[in-house]
Amino acid sequence: MTTTNTSKTTALRTHTCGELTAANAGQTVTLSGWMDSKRNHGGVVFLNLRDLYGVTQVVARPDSPVFKIAEETKSEYVLRVTGKVTLRPGSNANKNMPTGEIELEASEIQVLNASLPLPFDLGEHAGVSEETRLKYRFLDLRRPAMAKNMVLRSRLSQVIRNYLYNLDFNEIETPMLTRSTPEGARDFVVPSRSNPGEFYALPQSPQQFKQVLMMSGMDRYFQLARNFRDEELRSDRQPEHTQIDLEMSFVDEQDIARVVEGMMKDVFAYLGETVAGPFPEMEFSDVMLKYGIDKPDLRYALEIKDCSALFKDSQFKVFSGALAEGGVVRAIKGEGGAVFSRSDMDKLTDLVKKHGAKGLVWLRFKEGKWESPTLKFFSDAEQAALKDLLEVKDGDAVFIAADKAAVAAPCLGALRTELIARLKPAQLKKWAFLWVRHFPLLEKDAETGNWTFTHNPFTAPLPEEEHKLDTDPGNVRSAQYDLVLNGVELGSGSVRNHTRALQEKIFALMGYDKAQVQSRFGMIVNAMDYGAPPHGGIGMGYDRLIGIICGTDSIRDVIAFPKTTSGACLMSDAPAKLDERQLKELHLKIVE
Amino acid sequence: MTTTNTSKTTALRTHTCGELTAANAGQTVTLSGWMDSKRNHGGVVFLNLRDLYGVTQVVARPDSPVFKIAEETKSEYVLRVTGKVTLRPGSNANKNMPTGEIELEASEIQVLNASLPLPFDLGEHAGVSEETRLKYRFLDLRRPAMAKNMVLRSRLSQVIRNYLYNLDFNEIETPMLTRSTPEGARDFVVPSRSNPGEFYALPQSPQQFKQVLMMSGMDRYFQLARNFRDEELRSDRQPEHTQIDLEMSFVDEQDIARVVEGMMKDVFAYLGETVAGPFPEMEFSDVMLKYGIDKPDLRYALEIKDCSALFKDSQFKVFSGALAEGGVVRAIKGEGGAVFSRSDMDKLTDLVKKHGAKGLVWLRFKEGKWESPTLKFFSDAEQAALKDLLEVKDGDAVFIAADKAAVAAPCLGALRTELIARLKPAQLKKWAFLWVRHFPLLEKDAETGNWTFTHNPFTAPLPEEEHKLDTDPGNVRSAQYDLVLNGVELGSGSVRNHTRALQEKIFALMGYDKAQVQSRFGMIVNAMDYGAPPHGGIGMGYDRLIGIICGTDSIRDVIAFPKTTSGACLMSDAPAKLDERQLKELHLKIVE
Repeated sequence: MTTTNTSKTTALRTHTCGELTAANAGQTVTLSGWMDSKRNHGGVVFLNLRDLYGVTQVVARPDSPVFKIAEETKSEYVLRVTGKVTLRPGSNANKNMPTGEIELEASEIQVLNASLPLPFDLGEHAGVSEETRLKYRFLDLRRPAMAKNMVLRSRLSQVIRNYLYNLDFNEIETPMLTRSTPEGARDFVVPSRSNPGEFYALPQSPQQFKQVLMMSGMDRYFQLARNFRDEELRSDRQPEHTQIDLEMSFVDEQDIARVVEGMMKDVFAYLGETVAGPFPEMEFSDVMLKYGIDKPDLRYALEIKDCSALFKDSQFKVFSGALAEGGVVRAIKGEGGAVFSRSDMDKLTDLVKKHGAKGLVWLRFKEGKWESPTLKFFSDAEQAALKDLLEVKDGDAVFIAADKAAVAAPCLGALRTELIARLKPAQLKKWAFLWVRHFPLLEKDAETGNWTFTHNPFTAPLPEEEHKLDTDPGNVRSAQYDLVLNGVELGSGSVRNHTRALQEKIFALMGYDKAQVQSRFGMIVNAMDYGAPPHGGIGMGYDRLIGIICGTDSIRDVIAFPKTTSGACLMSDAPAKLDERQLKELHLKIVE
Repeated sequence: MTTTNTSKTTALRTHTCGELTAANAGQTVTLSGWMDSKRNHGGVVFLNLRDLYGVTQVVARPDSPVFKIAEETKSEYVLRVTGKVTLRPGSNANKNMPTGEIELEASEIQVLNASLPLPFDLGEHAGVSEETRLKYRFLDLRRPAMAKNMVLRSRLSQVIRNYLYNLDFNEIETPMLTRSTPEGARDFVVPSRSNPGEFYALPQSPQQFKQVLMMSGMDRYFQLARNFRDEELRSDRQPEHTQIDLEMSFVDEQDIARVVEGMMKDVFAYLGETVAGPFPEMEFSDVMLKYGIDKPDLRYALEIKDCSALFKDSQFKVFSGALAEGGVVRAIKGEGGAVFSRSDMDKLTDLVKKHGAKGLVWLRFKEGKWESPTLKFFSDAEQAALKDLLEVKDGDAVFIAADKAAVAAPCLGALRTELIARLKPAQLKKWAFLWVRHFPLLEKDAETGNWTFTHNPFTAPLPEEEHKLDTDPGNVRSAQYDLVLNGVELGSGSVRNHTRALQEKIFALMGYDKAQVQSRFGMIVNAMDYGAPPHGGIGMGYDRLIGIICGTDSIRDVIAFPKTTSGACLMSDAPAKLDERQLKELHLKIVE
C-alpha cells in the first residue's frame, strides 16, 4: 500500500475522499467514509464514498470479491475501501467533481458501521421540517451545505483571531459564573450548591469584566465569548450566542473603528471579497432623518427627504397641521413605484399605520403628470418643487408622511425597507457597512419616567456634550456607535466612562443611589478608583455575521446545535426535570 | 510630533512604554500609562511610566512647566506624557530594561485619571493575602508576573489553534445549555423560565456533543471549551475551567497521540523548549507496578521493584504472611536515604499507613552494611540479593511494603513522591511526558457493587479484549489513555464505541436498562444507529497545562478572575441572592 503522508492520513485511511486526482493513478489507497449514493450500471456497482472533504467514486465489478458487499451497502453505511486509483476513461471524467478524473477499483470493502434507513434523504432536505432536521442534527450536518457553514464559521473565527493577535490583542477568558443582579431580568441564573439561596448569573456579555481588564492594564483584550439571554426567542435569537468582543485602552472612537474595519477586510478577503475601510459613518440623528431607522441597508440609494420647507404654506391640512404642531413633512421616492396599484398603496398605508402614522400620502408620476387622490391639495409650484427635490422621473412614486419627527422617521424607514423588497432597486454595492455614531446617551424610560441609558450604562458622553448632563440630559450625544452591514446591526460599542465621578453622575441621572450603584456595578466603580485608563470597545454578533455571509435568514443554520424557539434541544431533550434529591441539595422547590 | 505607525499607536499615544530605544532619540513622542514609581534625584523628578509592554523613564526638570505636576503624581495615576526621547548618559543607561538606553524629557503631562492609595504595593505582593489579591484583582493583574501569565495563556491558546487548524481541525462551539440528567450530581443547573420546572445543565465536558459531531461527519473537531463542575474546590480546581478538547474520526490511539505530541512540541517550542514525540508510553498495569500511581513524575528515575520472588522463602512473617495471602513484596530505593533519622522513618511509615499499609519495612545501607530494626529477619542471601536487585550503594535506604498489590502500589507510589520531595534526586529531564494506556474498562462501584466505567462510559474495550466482556468484565483492558506531564494528569481520552450494540452491552454491564440508557444517553446512542464512524479523542486541562508552564501551584494564578475555594468571586460578590420577583418568574422557592 502506498501511503502518502498527508496530514489527514490515519490508521483507517491513507487519503480523504476529496483529494485523489489523476496524479494518484496507479496507487493503492484506502479511503473511509459514508456511502452517499450507489448505482448499478451494466452490472457494475458505482458507489460514491463521502467524507467532509469530498466524494470519490468507488467501482466494484461483477468478477470482484467485493462485488457482493458493494451491492449490499446502504445509504450512510460507514465503509473502509482499499483499491487502486484508476483514470476514468476520458468521456466518463466528471469535471464538476475535484476527484472526477479518477475512480477507485475496490479490492477490499469493510463495513465499519451500518445505518438504519434515514428519516430524510440528505440530498432532498427542502421539504423536511426544521423539527426533523434538529432532532436528527447529526444527519442534517452531514449535508454538504450545512457542513460548509460549520467549516466557514470555524475558519473565519481563526481569521479573526489571527488578525487580532497580530495587533497584540490577547484573548482572555472572562467568567461564565458571574454575579446576578436583582434587576437582571434576562439573566439565566445558576443556583450555588455551596451557598444555599444564592445564585450565579450567566453573562449577557463580558462588558464589566472586559472593562475591568482594561483597568487591570491588559491594554487590548478580545474574546469570542458565549453570551446568554433568557428572553423570548425569534428567528435570529438564541438563548446562547457568540460575540466577537473587544476592548482597547487609550483609544478614541476612530481607533476602534480602524481595528474593526481591518478585521472585516480580512474576513471578507478570506471569502474572496474586497471590503475597504474606513467605512462611511453618519450621526445617529442624520441616519434617522435620511433612513428612518438606525440600521439602514445602504446597499440601496433610497433616501428620505425633508419637505417641511417646501410645504410650509401648504393648503393641505395634513401637512399644515403637522407643521403647526412642530412636526415634519418628509418624503421618499420609489423608483418605478408608479406600477403600484391602489391596493398596493393601501397595503403600504397599513404598514406605516402600524408604525404610528395616521395615514400616508402617495403620488404616482406617469407620462409627465402626477396622479394621486390628494393631488388637488398640491399647488402647481409644490408639485414642481416636489418633482425637483426628489428627482422624480416617469414611472416613479412618491410617499409623504406628515407627523411628529419621532413618528415620521420610523414610518418612512419601514416604508423604505418595503420599497426595497418590492421594487428591487439596483444594489450600489454588495457589502454596505455603516458606522452609526453618537446615539443619545439617555432616553426616558417609558415605565418609570426616569432617564435610562439607550445602549450601555458605561458609555461616555462626547466630551463637548458633557456640560449638558446638568441642563439637558436628553440631548447629550454619546460616544456610542453601531456597526451596520446590509441593514443588520452587526455590533455595538462605545468609548466608556473611566472616572468614577462621571460614571456616578450618569447613574444618578438614571435614578440609582450610591447603594444601588455599589450593589449592581460595585466591581467596576471600585476599579475606577484606582487608575482606570480611558478605554472603549465593541461587541459584534458572530452568529449574525456568519449568517449574513452564509446567506441564511436563520442563525440556526450557522450554529451546530441550536435550540428551538421554545428553548429546547430536540436532539438531547434539554431542558429536563431534576429529581427530588438534586432539588433538595440545591435548597430549591418548584412552585406552580 | 513624530508618529511612528506601530500597530499600537492610538489617539492617546504614539508608542507603548516598552518600545523606545536609542534609535528613537530626538523624536517627540507621546506615551500613556501608569505611574509605577517616582524618585527625586538632585531636584530632578524621575517617573517610571508603565504599561503592559514595559516601563519608560520620564524626566521632569525643575525648570520645566511639567515639574510640579510630575512631582504631584501618585502611584497608579494614569498619565499621558509627551516629550523628547533623549539618550541617557552612558553611565546612566540601564541594561536590564529594554528601554534603558533612553529617557523621555517630558514637555507635557496630562493626568488621565487619579488613583486612591493602593491597598497593597504592586512591587511587594508576597505578604499580601490571596483574599486581598482577589478582591483587588484589577491591581493584582497589573503586576508584571501576573500580566505575563495572562499573556502567555492567551498566546499559547493561539499556538494551539494554529497547530490544529493546520491539521484541518475545525473549532465548533457546542452548547452551554445542555441536558441535565437525574444522575448528574455534579452538574450546575439552570432553570428554564419558559419551561417551568425544567432545567438545563452546564456541561461537565463537551463529550457527548463532540462524539455527535464525529457522527455528523465533521471529521476533526476541537474546542477550547469551558467546563463546569459543582463540587468541592481544591487548589487546582475551579467551578469553571478550560479544556483543550478534540475528537477525530477514523483513528486509533496512536493517531491521536501523534496529534497531541505535535501540539505539545509547538507549545514548548514557543517557550524555547524542545519536546519531542513520540512520548514514552506504558501499560496502566505496568505503571502501577513500577510507580504505584497512575500519574508518575518521570523526571525522576526512582522505580518500585517486585521482591516477591526474592522473599519467597522469607522467615519474616510480615513477608511470608503477605505472600501466603496472594499479596506482594515490593521495594523502592531512596538514593542518599541513609541520612533519614528514626523519626524521619516514623513519618514515612505514617505516610504509607495513610494509604492503607499496616507498616513499612526500612533498611539503611551504611559503610557496606545494612542496618534496620528488622534486619534480623533477613537471611544473608536475602540481604545480598536485595542489594543487587536495587543496586544499593553506600548511603542509600530501601523501603519495603508487603501487602495486597492494591495496597502496596499506592503506598509505595506515595512514598516515591515523598522521597523525591525529600531527597531531591537528579532530574533526568525537564519535561517528562508519559502516555499511560489501557486502563481497565470497568471497575466495581464501591457503593452499588455494580460495574461502572473507570473513566468514561463511551470508551471502547481493546478489540482483542472484547470477548472478556462476557466472562471477565473486570479484566477488560480499554482504549483509554492519560497523558501525564511531570506527575500531573494533563489529559484523558480514548477511542470510543461507535456501534450501538457494543455500547449497549457495556451499559448493560453497568446496570442501565434500555430506558435509562435512552434517558441519559439517548442523543448519542440514537446517532449510533445512523452510520457512526470509528472515532476517538482527548480532553486536556488548559488551566493545568498553563499552570505547569508558569510554574505555579495554583491555577488561580493563570485564570484572570478565579473563584475562591468557596466558589465566590470576591471582586463582583458572586454568587448573590435573587429577589422574590425573579424567583417567582422561575417558579422557584428557596427551602432551608
